[in-house]
Amino acid sequence: MEPIKRLTIVGCGLIGGSLARALKEAGKVDVVVGTGRREEPLRQAQALGVVDEWTTDLAAAVKGAEVVVLCTPLGAMRKVLEAIAPRLDEQTILTDVGSAKGSVVQDVAHAFGHLPANFVPGHPIAGTEKSGVEASFATLYHDRRVILTPLPSTDSLALARVNAMWKAAGAQVVEMSVTHHDDILAATSHLPHMLAFGLVDTLSRWDDNREIFEFAAGGFRDFTRIASSDPVMWRDICMANREALMQAIQRYMDDLELLLDLVRQRDGDKLENVFRNAREQRARFLKILEGS
Amino acid sequence: MEPIKRLTIVGCGLIGGSLARALKEAGKVDVVVGTGRREEPLRQAQALGVVDEWTTDLAAAVKGAEVVVLCTPLGAMRKVLEAIAPRLDEQTILTDVGSAKGSVVQDVAHAFGHLPANFVPGHPIAGTEKSGVEASFATLYHDRRVILTPLPSTDSLALARVNAMWKAAGAQVVEMSVTHHDDILAATSHLPHMLAFGLVDTLSRWDDNREIFEFAAGGFRDFTRIASSDPVMWRDICMANREALMQAIQRYMDDLELLLDLVRQRDGDKLENVFRNAREQRARFLKILEGS
Repeated sequence: MEPIKRLTIVGCGLIGGSLARALKEAGKVDVVVGTGRREEPLRQAQALGVVDEWTTDLAAAVKGAEVVVLCTPLGAMRKVLEAIAPRLDEQTILTDVGSAKGSVVQDVAHAFGHLPANFVPGHPIAGTEKSGVEASFATLYHDRRVILTPLPSTDSLALARVNAMWKAAGAQVVEMSVTHHDDILAATSHLPHMLAFGLVDTLSRWDDNREIFEFAAGGFRDFTRIASSDPVMWRDICMANREALMQAIQRYMDDLELLLDLVRQRDGDKLENVFRNAREQRARFLKILEGS
Repeated sequence: MEPIKRLTIVGCGLIGGSLARALKEAGKVDVVVGTGRREEPLRQAQALGVVDEWTTDLAAAVKGAEVVVLCTPLGAMRKVLEAIAPRLDEQTILTDVGSAKGSVVQDVAHAFGHLPANFVPGHPIAGTEKSGVEASFATLYHDRRVILTPLPSTDSLALARVNAMWKAAGAQVVEMSVTHHDDILAATSHLPHMLAFGLVDTLSRWDDNREIFEFAAGGFRDFTRIASSDPVMWRDICMANREALMQAIQRYMDDLELLLDLVRQRDGDKLENVFRNAREQRARFLKILEGS
């Protein structure tokens, strides 16, 4: 692909910073512009060589950009879009990295009054429980999946450009519908986060919580690792993907009720079958993960 | 401590094998006898130098032992106890490593017709998702907790001997009641295993499960690691610690219902508080784990 002439990253944290680093290392971007509400992360991004220029004036930052990548928290997306919409050139490609896609599409429609042809909703399935530009690194997207959810209104050249950008960052790009994306992410990411946050919170309110944590071991540590994720980001995701998440939680609770019944009825055989299936399916998942 | 003259390990897998290795390395055991129903693991234990002698005759194996450690799956505990009870010398110390303590105490009472003074229920909080003597290693218990749950009937010298044995294997030994142990383990270990097994099983039965696993990432892998644990062992644990586990699941489901309500009501502030508390509590737990 031809290098992107001018790339504007809105929100220079782990995700945006890692994309900028990857494209710079691959020689696929000429100028990276950083922007956001606060000066400090932008200064830091420049000091780390992640961005070439920065400004807290969002409208100025997107002016003349070839590609704008919104790495804004989902809860701030609408405000940011309202700030850039009046100044975004029609030929500028607009994409985002939000963990829920339906809400971003709504925010874009709200801010622009229509869905621009150069808008390509996207979501890289990558990250760590850390955040901030200081945690960013060029190989974050290597062999990771990036899901693009083009709309009927999306221009095919804009889609191809965003696709090529992520491939240049080392990712595998797939396309699916907005709804399908939101259902799948509710199941594999948003639901597990709720369960892990919920477990730690529940146990912390048991009377003997000090002792409980004292006798928890490595299994508990791994199980709850995602409960160390950013609370604000996850609040936003829950609100943004509310419908799909509610369905996933309900479905999970129904199945957990069945498991509880098996314990209640002392049905060891059926319990063992559930555990056996889970172990086999997880082995299958690990193969997919390694192969990806 | 004086080395144990003759130590019999009933069930030579990860747990029993690692104890034998640790005591041998520390020079705290003269002869290790391995026993169990199947020949193959015992042959392997001898080939690996984990045991010095072995026999599938349980009664013969415990005869003349100074200490017998039951590393039998919880579901086979009663049968094994019935086999050894008639031949166990009165002065032999009997201990176990079961993940639930109430059920083992019941099994012992059933097999002996009373609770022997030299019976010391125990549970090392250690393990990996692997099993079998080939996965055993001498440092498994280093800085791990071992919980002993002495009964009113338990002789203090027997308790001290078992305590010293685990310390010699590198562990930190604490004492608590049977009920307290079972409640705490239900919360920190048995409940998380149910949640992880349950999630993988649930998702595997969604229509688009192939895709679901394809887009799951590292967070999902860590969250579900414990779902790769041994199905039979976990069936046994669920049956053995049934009451405490049922209470823990119910309590968790009630709290999950509240979380679902927060999502339903779009109460982002309260959700964020839950997530924030969970993250803080997990940081506290990690400090405890590192300091332990």
